[in-house]
Amino acid sequence: MIIIMDSEATLFEIDNVIAEVEAKGWQTHISRGSGETIIGLQGRGQSIDPFQLGQMPGVRDTMAITQQFKLASRAFQPENTTFTIGEVTIGGNRLAIMAGPCSVESREQLLQTAHAVKEAGATFLRGGAFKPRSSPYSFQGMGEPGLKLLAEAREATGLPVVTEVMSPARVALVAVYADVLQIGARNMQNFDLLNAVGRAHKPVLLKRGMSATIEDLLMAAEYILAHGNQRVILCERGIRTFDNKYARNTFDVNAIPMLKELTHLPVIADPSHAVGVRRHVPAITLAGVAAGADGVIIETHPDPDQAASDGAQSLTLPQFTELVPQIKAMAEAVGRTV
Amino acid sequence: MIIIMDSEATLFEIDNVIAEVEAKGWQTHISRGSGETIIGLQGRGQSIDPFQLGQMPGVRDTMAITQQFKLASRAFQPENTTFTIGEVTIGGNRLAIMAGPCSVESREQLLQTAHAVKEAGATFLRGGAFKPRSSPYSFQGMGEPGLKLLAEAREATGLPVVTEVMSPARVALVAVYADVLQIGARNMQNFDLLNAVGRAHKPVLLKRGMSATIEDLLMAAEYILAHGNQRVILCERGIRTFDNKYARNTFDVNAIPMLKELTHLPVIADPSHAVGVRRHVPAITLAGVAAGADGVIIETHPDPDQAASDGAQSLTLPQFTELVPQIKAMAEAVGRTV
Amino acid sequence: MIIIMDSEATLFEIDNVIAEVEAKGWQTHISRGSGETIIGLQGRGQSIDPFQLGQMPGVRDTMAITQQFKLASRAFQPENTTFTIGEVTIGGNRLAIMAGPCSVESREQLLQTAHAVKEAGATFLRGGAFKPRSSPYSFQGMGEPGLKLLAEAREATGLPVVTEVMSPARVALVAVYADVLQIGARNMQNFDLLNAVGRAHKPVLLKRGMSATIEDLLMAAEYILAHGNQRVILCERGIRTFDNKYARNTFDVNAIPMLKELTHLPVIADPSHAVGVRRHVPAITLAGVAAGADGVIIETHPDPDQAASDGAQSLTLPQFTELVPQIKAMAEAVGRTV
Amino acid sequence: MIIIMDSEATLFEIDNVIAEVEAKGWQTHISRGSGETIIGLQGRGQSIDPFQLGQMPGVRDTMAITQQFKLASRAFQPENTTFTIGEVTIGGNRLAIMAGPCSVESREQLLQTAHAVKEAGATFLRGGAFKPRSSPYSFQGMGEPGLKLLAEAREATGLPVVTEVMSPARVALVAVYADVLQIGARNMQNFDLLNAVGRAHKPVLLKRGMSATIEDLLMAAEYILAHGNQRVILCERGIRTFDNKYARNTFDVNAIPMLKELTHLPVIADPSHAVGVRRHVPAITLAGVAAGADGVIIETHPDPDQAASDGAQSLTLPQFTELVPQIKAMAEAVGRTV
Repeated sequence: MIIIMDSEATLFEIDNVIAEVEAKGWQTHISRGSGETIIGLQGRGQSIDPFQLGQMPGVRDTMAITQQFKLASRAFQPENTTFTIGEVTIGGNRLAIMAGPCSVESREQLLQTAHAVKEAGATFLRGGAFKPRSSPYSFQGMGEPGLKLLAEAREATGLPVVTEVMSPARVALVAVYADVLQIGARNMQNFDLLNAVGRAHKPVLLKRGMSATIEDLLMAAEYILAHGNQRVILCERGIRTFDNKYARNTFDVNAIPMLKELTHLPVIADPSHAVGVRRHVPAITLAGVAAGADGVIIETHPDPDQAASDGAQSLTLPQFTELVPQIKAMAEAVGRTV
Repeated sequence: MIIIMDSEATLFEIDNVIAEVEAKGWQTHISRGSGETIIGLQGRGQSIDPFQLGQMPGVRDTMAITQQFKLASRAFQPENTTFTIGEVTIGGNRLAIMAGPCSVESREQLLQTAHAVKEAGATFLRGGAFKPRSSPYSFQGMGEPGLKLLAEAREATGLPVVTEVMSPARVALVAVYADVLQIGARNMQNFDLLNAVGRAHKPVLLKRGMSATIEDLLMAAEYILAHGNQRVILCERGIRTFDNKYARNTFDVNAIPMLKELTHLPVIADPSHAVGVRRHVPAITLAGVAAGADGVIIETHPDPDQAASDGAQSLTLPQFTELVPQIKAMAEAVGRTV
Repeated sequence: MIIIMDSEATLFEIDNVIAEVEAKGWQTHISRGSGETIIGLQGRGQSIDPFQLGQMPGVRDTMAITQQFKLASRAFQPENTTFTIGEVTIGGNRLAIMAGPCSVESREQLLQTAHAVKEAGATFLRGGAFKPRSSPYSFQGMGEPGLKLLAEAREATGLPVVTEVMSPARVALVAVYADVLQIGARNMQNFDLLNAVGRAHKPVLLKRGMSATIEDLLMAAEYILAHGNQRVILCERGIRTFDNKYARNTFDVNAIPMLKELTHLPVIADPSHAVGVRRHVPAITLAGVAAGADGVIIETHPDPDQAASDGAQSLTLPQFTELVPQIKAMAEAVGRTV
Repeated sequence: MIIIMDSEATLFEIDNVIAEVEAKGWQTHISRGSGETIIGLQGRGQSIDPFQLGQMPGVRDTMAITQQFKLASRAFQPENTTFTIGEVTIGGNRLAIMAGPCSVESREQLLQTAHAVKEAGATFLRGGAFKPRSSPYSFQGMGEPGLKLLAEAREATGLPVVTEVMSPARVALVAVYADVLQIGARNMQNFDLLNAVGRAHKPVLLKRGMSATIEDLLMAAEYILAHGNQRVILCERGIRTFDNKYARNTFDVNAIPMLKELTHLPVIADPSHAVGVRRHVPAITLAGVAAGADGVIIETHPDPDQAASDGAQSLTLPQFTELVPQIKAMAEAVGRTV
């Protein structure tokens, strides 16, 4: 249940309502939009009579939220969540453009990429230091030295850094170097990890699992929100379907307008994983923007054929440079900027 | 196998090559592009030595096509297939915009829709007279009287008519009234029907089956092409996946650039079935165009909530009118026109 | 809605109820079980007050059937549908064992197979004369000569014949030779074909489509039942999922107990298509029987590696002969016979 | 690559081969079957000439393993892995029967269940103390007090305990109480967790992820094996497909014979999650055994309708007691025991 207070409700009235529901065993979560305060009930308290509550001074309305996700829902917070990372605001009219290699492989590879994508117009640098790989015999990432290189690349370019964290025990370490903590698709329902990033003081980029429903994704975000971290970015990165002969995954472009309707959180597209084939990445990037994504995250590499991971889906630096103006044209066609 | 002739090969040389391979039990299919003739081998003849064939006068090259689809492949015909229906050319730079009701329900409903979509900028009128429905107790379409209304609407507006045919026995009847014969998703592998429209003298719009792979779709097109009808339009209309709570299907937008690469046939998007929710149809329409579709087919209805079928995914006439300029902006962003 | 009459209701009372609902524009369908008559309402008549109807003499109860499938539902007919084909009863305690080649290829191949499977314990002969193939260049079946060979094999062995029909125009022809008309997975929603076999006087074996839900399958059966043919056998033959590296399809064994609960129609398993790999067919056959299937349909061939179609999933004749006693042991473990 | 040594190879010859390949930068893994020693190469060393290696004394053969999974493959170890937990051997002819509640809820609930399932014939007790739940607002398990109750139930009944561990940091804690560490479906690709249980001294029950391919599952097992833990049990628990109206998941029964062929590890079935509907659990249990599973894991609860989790799919204690003799009959039908 959520309780919507009058825009003229006093702090005293708000506190009274909070005290009332907390006395019945509920926890409360407060959302303040433009002039309006919404009190969300969490946990499992005694049943509350909405009519009686509606009579309390300052209460405008109460609403049962039947969706399982509450803090993530538009009903709870009608306005878009926006927040600023470095000098870039995400969730607003301007699209975020995140680019960089799948894995950090070397100082030279990373810095060359970082300068090139910055030059081309990227607003974030992505790169993995801890890599979830299907095979234990594949390259597992550089670890902390990779994180240090990312921090160095940020110093050199000013681009905030997005990088993956794979286990609760390493959240503190990764948070030292990263500007955005990425949760990979395979860990979308690693609940201990979600709780850990929920307690962290860095924004989180949460990728949709390969067979996660829209609702599963929102419930995973709910874990993070419920642990106190309100800065969550959702990412559609392709799902598993019956057809993977010509593409690695199926980009669920429907998810973008559906998520934008259901939640106030920013939603970005990952065309690299979603199609998995370099020459189709530009078309899928544009489709994501056309459908309303708040940004894109694109794998780029100075020499994709030699990449330690995901080379087949990484753009070359010139390809990325060529793509940015197309993203810009597309953004303008849907009334946005880059 | 395909045989590529020199651009200066004489008709006599071409005929010799054809005679040679037909003597070995193969059927041949000739494709003439700008200056270049390609001979495709079909059926099951004796094995042919590509080296020996390569020595014949006029032969530039031979190529084994390992893909199962041959006539549909880019290898067989590198240039886009384009053809003109009424006054509209499909497969070229200009996008086709097909609009109209799911089912023809009445003269008034159809004519009102036809005039409105023509006015808004549509270039084709769609509408079903024979309807494949999951339930035998649902409205099955008006039948031939519906076809007559479609013909009347074409007279009134000049829009060519796209309408579905569901069984081989009715191909001749539907072809009397229709400009484009539609094969529905459930009939994509109804091979007797594919053969029948392959022998018809009208273009065919072939919808991808709900669980058809890209290759299945191209093989279904191959049936039509192999029976002599070269005017086939492919249509991505959403596939079945594990998630259908918020959308009816999953729009496989990846399919659009993949198909455009694999085949020379025009490819359009059906956002109405692909997402199945009226308020998300515009975003998905734009995503399809951004990904490179050669057109869109959109369900529109004067009063969707009263529609005999598919009301939930049909745009109102004002919604369609509002969408066309957005399609136009999107087309321009990818270098095309409407 | 269905109306359940008292077991002592007179014919006069039954006729009165029928007249009453038909006067309101409904069609009726009568089901007579052991002592109990159920009147099903079909089509779209005026609304009926269940209370008022319940007051009519002889009416014991009325029930709204919210499921879309009515004639196929257990609510409409609580007892299993059983019927006899040749000397074999299907839907009862004894399992049907259908075996034979994917395609009829020659007199020798078919007769050898028919005698061998009869000897081993099969109760039906399967074999395709009209073959739905993904590629127009693949063997499409022998056509009518194949049907004649099937009839000859029936004469020789006494086994009733199951064979596929692919288009409405050929139902009459196939019904001359076949004992059971098979509708293939790709035609499960070829509604004109369903209507045609619904009007035929032969039982129908309806295969589940590759991406058909349980409900889609029951609705397809409903088409056949609603056109007057009550002898329908359902067949689970594997569905399309994300994993097809080691198996052709995913055998949805859950479907068997679910269908047995939802419908009174017999349900059989097709392990050959469901797993698509010869050496795994026995395990999947046994799983189907363990889950409650009323029979199995298994592809067998004298020389699978030379088969014109589906060789990879066909058992050799000795493999089939070895499998039958295992089916028998399994049947006994679940309280049934072969 | 794997190297198969002569059955008469001396330890000296074996050591020489190991030294040779380790000198080229490879790690080695030794498997000793009945009389035969196999040396597996892991990691990334310099390329090795198989011919030259084949000339070394004691080497019988070398084999490139093209599958990504090596330690898990039948090629590497042709014989079934079997191991004993408490007094029960798993992977041999006798089936493992694991039963117990989804969540440990109270001392009474657990002990009542443990005694009842022991009495009925179960050989393991299952129960969750740490629960992965889609919603942060759902019951998350009792934590360590739940583990203590499990240990108490083992004392009381002699049944070894299977319980889930959700994060690397808790592996040591859970291993104190558990006999088998369960990795849940959502964590199948939580690689840090796989590594942690790979270093633990307790057997691992690894559940297949909802959209994990057969190969993904084997690669996840490979992580555990490569970290030194050879006692891994695989579990098929249903996958996500397009149809979930009447069942929670789709039990991929094909996976059982396929896994038994590809790997030497024991494979069990989880019918409770695989179908998710109590009344269908028995049929699916039997199907799993018929297909060749080495055991089953079944949720049981004294009062399922009051269960804190998964009540809809939990058997009552009498239902479980009734099912065991059916499992026994089925086991005998496939030549096994319980």
